[in-house]
Amino acid sequence: MTDKHVYLFDDDLGAAYAEPQAQKDLLGGKGAGLMVMRRLGIPVPPGFTITTEVCNHFRTHDQSFPDGLEDQVREALKSVEAEVERGFGDAKNPLLVSVRSGARKSMPGMMDTILNLGLTDETVEGLAEGSGDRRFAFDAYRRLLQMYGDVVLGVDHSSFEQVLGDLKRELGSGRMLDSEIPTDGLEELVKRYKKLIASEGSTPFPQDVWGQLWGAVGAVFESWDNQRAIRYRRMQGFSDDWGTACNVQAMVFGNMGETSGSGVCFTRNPSTGEKMLYGEYLPNAQGEDVVAGIRTPLNITAKGAPIGREDETLERKMPEVFQTIVELCAKLEAHYGDMQDVELTVERGKAWVLQTRTGKRAAHAAVRIAKELVDEGVLTREQALMNVDASMLDQLLHARLPTPEELEKNGVLPVASGLPASPGAATGKIVFDADHAEEAAKNGEEVILVRRETSPEDIHGMKAAQGIVTATGGMTSHAAVVARGLGKCCVAGCSDLQVDYDKQQVIARRDGGDAVTFNAGDVITLDGTHGKVYGGALDVVAAAKVPELETLMEWADEVRTLRVRANADTPRSARLARSYGAEGIGLCRTEHMFFADERLEAVRCVVLASSAEKRQQWLARVEPMQQQDFAKIFKAMDGLPVTVRLLDWPLHEFLPREEKEYQAVADALLEDVSAVKARSRQMHEVNPMLGHRAVRVGLTMPAIYEMQVRALIQAALDVSAAGVAVHPEIMIPVVGIGGELARMRKLVDDTAKALFEKAGRSVEYHVGTMIELPRACLVAGELAESAEFFSFGTNDLTQTTFGISRDDAGRFLPTYIDELQILKADPFARLDESGVGELVAIACERGRAQRPDIKLGLCGEHGGDPPSIDFCHRTGLAYVSCSPPRLPIARLAAAQAALRNA
Amino acid sequence: MTDKHVYLFDDDLGAAYAEPQAQKDLLGGKGAGLMVMRRLGIPVPPGFTITTEVCNHFRTHDQSFPDGLEDQVREALKSVEAEVERGFGDAKNPLLVSVRSGARKSMPGMMDTILNLGLTDETVEGLAEGSGDRRFAFDAYRRLLQMYGDVVLGVDHSSFEQVLGDLKRELGSGRMLDSEIPTDGLEELVKRYKKLIASEGSTPFPQDVWGQLWGAVGAVFESWDNQRAIRYRRMQGFSDDWGTACNVQAMVFGNMGETSGSGVCFTRNPSTGEKMLYGEYLPNAQGEDVVAGIRTPLNITAKGAPIGREDETLERKMPEVFQTIVELCAKLEAHYGDMQDVELTVERGKAWVLQTRTGKRAAHAAVRIAKELVDEGVLTREQALMNVDASMLDQLLHARLPTPEELEKNGVLPVASGLPASPGAATGKIVFDADHAEEAAKNGEEVILVRRETSPEDIHGMKAAQGIVTATGGMTSHAAVVARGLGKCCVAGCSDLQVDYDKQQVIARRDGGDAVTFNAGDVITLDGTHGKVYGGALDVVAAAKVPELETLMEWADEVRTLRVRANADTPRSARLARSYGAEGIGLCRTEHMFFADERLEAVRCVVLASSAEKRQQWLARVEPMQQQDFAKIFKAMDGLPVTVRLLDWPLHEFLPREEKEYQAVADALLEDVSAVKARSRQMHEVNPMLGHRAVRVGLTMPAIYEMQVRALIQAALDVSAAGVAVHPEIMIPVVGIGGELARMRKLVDDTAKALFEKAGRSVEYHVGTMIELPRACLVAGELAESAEFFSFGTNDLTQTTFGISRDDAGRFLPTYIDELQILKADPFARLDESGVGELVAIACERGRAQRPDIKLGLCGEHGGDPPSIDFCHRTGLAYVSCSPPRLPIARLAAAQAALRNA
Repeated sequence: MTDKHVYLFDDDLGAAYAEPQAQKDLLGGKGAGLMVMRRLGIPVPPGFTITTEVCNHFRTHDQSFPDGLEDQVREALKSVEAEVERGFGDAKNPLLVSVRSGARKSMPGMMDTILNLGLTDETVEGLAEGSGDRRFAFDAYRRLLQMYGDVVLGVDHSSFEQVLGDLKRELGSGRMLDSEIPTDGLEELVKRYKKLIASEGSTPFPQDVWGQLWGAVGAVFESWDNQRAIRYRRMQGFSDDWGTACNVQAMVFGNMGETSGSGVCFTRNPSTGEKMLYGEYLPNAQGEDVVAGIRTPLNITAKGAPIGREDETLERKMPEVFQTIVELCAKLEAHYGDMQDVELTVERGKAWVLQTRTGKRAAHAAVRIAKELVDEGVLTREQALMNVDASMLDQLLHARLPTPEELEKNGVLPVASGLPASPGAATGKIVFDADHAEEAAKNGEEVILVRRETSPEDIHGMKAAQGIVTATGGMTSHAAVVARGLGKCCVAGCSDLQVDYDKQQVIARRDGGDAVTFNAGDVITLDGTHGKVYGGALDVVAAAKVPELETLMEWADEVRTLRVRANADTPRSARLARSYGAEGIGLCRTEHMFFADERLEAVRCVVLASSAEKRQQWLARVEPMQQQDFAKIFKAMDGLPVTVRLLDWPLHEFLPREEKEYQAVADALLEDVSAVKARSRQMHEVNPMLGHRAVRVGLTMPAIYEMQVRALIQAALDVSAAGVAVHPEIMIPVVGIGGELARMRKLVDDTAKALFEKAGRSVEYHVGTMIELPRACLVAGELAESAEFFSFGTNDLTQTTFGISRDDAGRFLPTYIDELQILKADPFARLDESGVGELVAIACERGRAQRPDIKLGLCGEHGGDPPSIDFCHRTGLAYVSCSPPRLPIARLAAAQAALRNA
Repeated sequence: MTDKHVYLFDDDLGAAYAEPQAQKDLLGGKGAGLMVMRRLGIPVPPGFTITTEVCNHFRTHDQSFPDGLEDQVREALKSVEAEVERGFGDAKNPLLVSVRSGARKSMPGMMDTILNLGLTDETVEGLAEGSGDRRFAFDAYRRLLQMYGDVVLGVDHSSFEQVLGDLKRELGSGRMLDSEIPTDGLEELVKRYKKLIASEGSTPFPQDVWGQLWGAVGAVFESWDNQRAIRYRRMQGFSDDWGTACNVQAMVFGNMGETSGSGVCFTRNPSTGEKMLYGEYLPNAQGEDVVAGIRTPLNITAKGAPIGREDETLERKMPEVFQTIVELCAKLEAHYGDMQDVELTVERGKAWVLQTRTGKRAAHAAVRIAKELVDEGVLTREQALMNVDASMLDQLLHARLPTPEELEKNGVLPVASGLPASPGAATGKIVFDADHAEEAAKNGEEVILVRRETSPEDIHGMKAAQGIVTATGGMTSHAAVVARGLGKCCVAGCSDLQVDYDKQQVIARRDGGDAVTFNAGDVITLDGTHGKVYGGALDVVAAAKVPELETLMEWADEVRTLRVRANADTPRSARLARSYGAEGIGLCRTEHMFFADERLEAVRCVVLASSAEKRQQWLARVEPMQQQDFAKIFKAMDGLPVTVRLLDWPLHEFLPREEKEYQAVADALLEDVSAVKARSRQMHEVNPMLGHRAVRVGLTMPAIYEMQVRALIQAALDVSAAGVAVHPEIMIPVVGIGGELARMRKLVDDTAKALFEKAGRSVEYHVGTMIELPRACLVAGELAESAEFFSFGTNDLTQTTFGISRDDAGRFLPTYIDELQILKADPFARLDESGVGELVAIACERGRAQRPDIKLGLCGEHGGDPPSIDFCHRTGLAYVSCSPPRLPIARLAAAQAALRNA
């Protein structure tokens, strides 16, 4: 360690600490920040910082301070005294200080703080006299006694509470507010607190201010090693070796009369982004009073104040102070390059800044502020891009509710939880079947379709409903897949619900909660983004239009190197994707096409056919429809690549459920219904996620994939003849073995060749695979022999890498994340870099080694998550693909990844 | 290439080709083998080999032969002529030769062969005269014409068949056997064949013997590149660059009268291993006649011949020839160090060896032969160990049927196929419930229990039955787990079966096959080793006693470095395991203990309890029983380590199925049956394999694992107090995240510490994890912070790495292996080295880097598969663990791995 242990806020740190990080390492985030503000000329109460090195010395040298510290502290304090013209321990004009911790990174509330230090029986009288406010002085003193007694001298917090409670009862009522205690009551309280400390504390309360100070500094350093702080560091991955700095700063008081006050001020409107000061203040009050919310604060600016109360604003009442605040806010914003949330105290007409930090804001405000800061010349475009939290953009594109946490604060709890199957929010009356939903919608009613599960028969009802909730099924259930396709919000697999179609009733029973019964026609609200169901109608915030977003997106597009594509299965969503800036379709699932009402029976016949001939015959009926689907999507994506994933669905999903459906299939196949049922029973799977699906069906029943490839290639030939630029990419799903892909590649090439010969023309197409199994990653080199592209299906890859079914994870994954903190994030929402990510990286490396120009992309839901997108950028993928409404997130996150890793 | 293109079988290859592999590379396996036999003084017809280098020259030089080849061939042929005293093309005494391919490794039937080469219109008369058998001469000629016409001159095979058919019809009957055609008929056939070749062939049949020879050599070289051969090489991983050699060898004939004959002879009895010649011969016949099976062959030795027919044996009829054969068999066996299967031809009293190879044998014969070859001083112990196919030892320990392939050859087809859930074979009458099974068994009847699925209520019936078959469920279903525990054979998940309890009927309907109905009391036979069900009673071969096995095992134990442990869940199987040489228990599953009849209701109450308190209360009832289980196993394994895996079972497996069971649980829990059912419904899982199981239950309902650990540690304390040496290893299953294991380790240590304090004593125990998820392999370093050992659970690891559920793979995995050849072996039976194996290797490396002394083992079913055991040895694992009857396999395979990789 160096010999310099103490830095005044005004000190020059010198070349050794030129880097902001080096400053924070030495002085902590708070100390470094105070220095910056002082250097900018912001009125910050003077003070100094004892370095983190001293903390580490203290911790490793039996709680002793290094040589020279005392002298340096005395020296520094002299400089503070000089600036504020008060003396530490001065009986007439005492200087009070705060002693605060401050580590390299913020650890809010984890370590200790002492305020009002410097008060003694003697100096309190000086403060009373000097301030002309005896009550204020004793109030400050009793607060110091309590904090110091607790933190430094080890008196139990509750002992102080008890003494205070007793006193209040003596004064008349135990329910009395602290602010209602008269001055002599506070004086009595001070006496009793001192007595309490003398009897229960490790020492009596020190009447020597230097003794106070060293005790407080030691306590701050010790608090680095309290259990709470250690646990927090474990969770955050902070090192125990950092240590905390200790900041000693002159106190200022907003409660010294009518020319004093405390407030909080945003430098721009955090809801709209408008450039104006936006904040509240309380005259003659301390900061903690503003937070406590006992009195209603007043506006800082006249603009936006309640009509008729403009004169009570700080702007009108103290125009000079207001002007000062306007200027220092501008200075802070210019320096930090972002909208600030500033804590202010005005002491007798002088404004002090206690703290500034980046202000939280609504999504559309964030976009507007970023854009305008560039217009104002404060930020470069690149800086502006980095200032916007990409994941917030989601809010701009879906209707939404406040988050479950926000609602819970207001006492609104969900009646049931399920999977966030399709984002958005919706309110409506409960209906239990598709026909009712359609009927109600025709009558202009808004309804929520509540089902145990949905099936293809329900699609018209899903279209008519505002949202869908199901009691069973997962993220890939029929309800979830179709709802995402339709852009409807959906909560799936809501096992808290028991649906009774006969009684037209649904009973919600959360674990440990009471059962709530809803009948048809009752109103509920869905949060598809978080997978929650609420009783009654909650306010749903509509999707916003933000003109500045377009500009921000243009800037992002200039910067990013990662391409963005959309997951889109229909012409409608393909068009939507283009409008959001998609540069192609990264995942066109074909399951949805198979489910369409009019073709479902034919598909069932395909699945249940007793011979390859019959299967072929029914496939022939599906083929022209499938061809139409592809033709429409190719037209919508004219000029852009379209990756079509061949069928990936457990066959049993297509099976009939009801007697009449079985009969219809048996009639169509000219077979006995019992034989059809027997075959259907044989298709039951124990673990369908790991079952007979995708390429495994493609290989055992090749007619299905052949039909799909024929439909796709013929569609491409037809639309290209009509002048559409078509770039089909055929993707084989769930491949884990080289031979699977080699055989499929041949099937595709042979099929295409035959059609090209027949047509006398050809179109360019590419064949690749979805990488979604651990083994596929390991044998990627072998797969690359047949594959021109890999698209990482990280949803399934996460399932198999962790051995966790997303559909079934609900009973333990939330506990892992929230309660046990075994995982930092849901691996299905944020790509797990140390497991899944390593497999992705291995696959990229081996794929490229075999085929250097292989195209690599990601089409799992991680494609819309900013940290996951950053991973994709670092791993050198060519593109990410996500659902259309997440494209703005992906574009911005890709730009940020490029800037961050430049 | 070198200038020497041709090697006589008697040539010395010189130092450059001292290595057997170098000899095979140059001359092919067949050529090198013929040289060896000649050098041993075995009477092999003389000849020479044209090298593989010539083949490659031919292929890359526009089908031309290198300079000097012709002279070298003429030179070599002269030497052959001299030895057999015949002339190539000599009109009086013609030399006939065979021209055969022979690559580095055997490619049976893939390339072309020409026999009887050297016959022309002229020399056939010389052969007729010399042999005194005109029919023989023309029969040989017509065979040459057909082979040569087809292979060399491109005449379609079917054209010859047609000419032959026409002739037979003219002679009286199209159904006439070839051997019934009279001499003049064959002469006519020769004429017609020559005419056919002249009109359809690329040239007429060459009457110049040298022209014949060069045509045949070229055809053999060309056949290296035929489609069939290329495909075979792809499959086997053979290189196209090897080329084939070409062997030219003098023909010998077994059909030259009563002093001639052909035979096949094993040097020891392949069924019993007894040291005696064992074989058959046909007098006056060619080798192909023996194979064709038209005449019944005679015994070679008098011993073992049918009673009364001893005088027809070769031993009695041609004692000198027999003596020669005895001697040359001994010579071959001594040279090759193993029992041989020798092809012989006797031509006019002289015995010739055409080929020798290692003889196939039954498992107990293999063991006896190996041991006796050591006793006889032929082999070292190490060589003997390498001579036994370890995987065959399985046959010695289970009752068994012939393989499905063998049965199919005899027209016996299974009526249904399922999963090979528990090995062995059994025959019995069908019963459909456990009570009937028990009753019938009491009456001395042998029964097979046929169920849709089994549940804990069925255990007494499973004990009583000879075998169990279920229509649903997989390798880890209740039926499979319990059957393996009981050592009963079991076919599970036999979806070909429809079980109708009401009608007391089961209908078997194989894909594409007719439905067969069985009623209660009908007899069926199960093959649990292959997962097949047969109608009626088949002969079941009982497990054999082989005294030599013990000796072989002792030798294996001296050699191997890999330890062997057993998967055993009960004291009975623990004792069985010790008797088979287990050096510990590698996997003691605790699920089985939970299923026991008398505790099942308590377990259901644990699972369905509505509060942690109630759960605790019911666990307390299970605890003493569990403690007893552990105590018994520890006693049985006195002195050896026991790895106990904590509960790994999807919770829903324990749920009640029937109304009365629900009612019983509700009564026990003092709750409403509807609430119990509702909780039960919520436990349904879409993919239970990837669901709420194992450590995930351990973390969300910690009371269960706490109970298990308490029971285990208390049992260890108790038995150690009674003088038993106890070495418990506690294994946490299905871990994928560092935090999961860290928390569990703490739970185990805390629980143990409390018991040790209470007891005032302690026992040593170890904590580790089962590695069975891809992510666990990747984060093995992190896991090794908490784990003292890893045990690879390669069953589950294979499932997640491939994304294939073993229970559901039946509809595509057999197609992958048998039909499409996408996989060479079932990855659940043989460890997939390129996928699963790489993950295992990664985990070992990272685990050791974190904790150098970490103990590594494998406890999946691969632990009983020899190639997988070889992988474990190479990867440096400490032990493998397998089911007790597979222990001899594991011990031998471990020894072989040590020898192979020394």
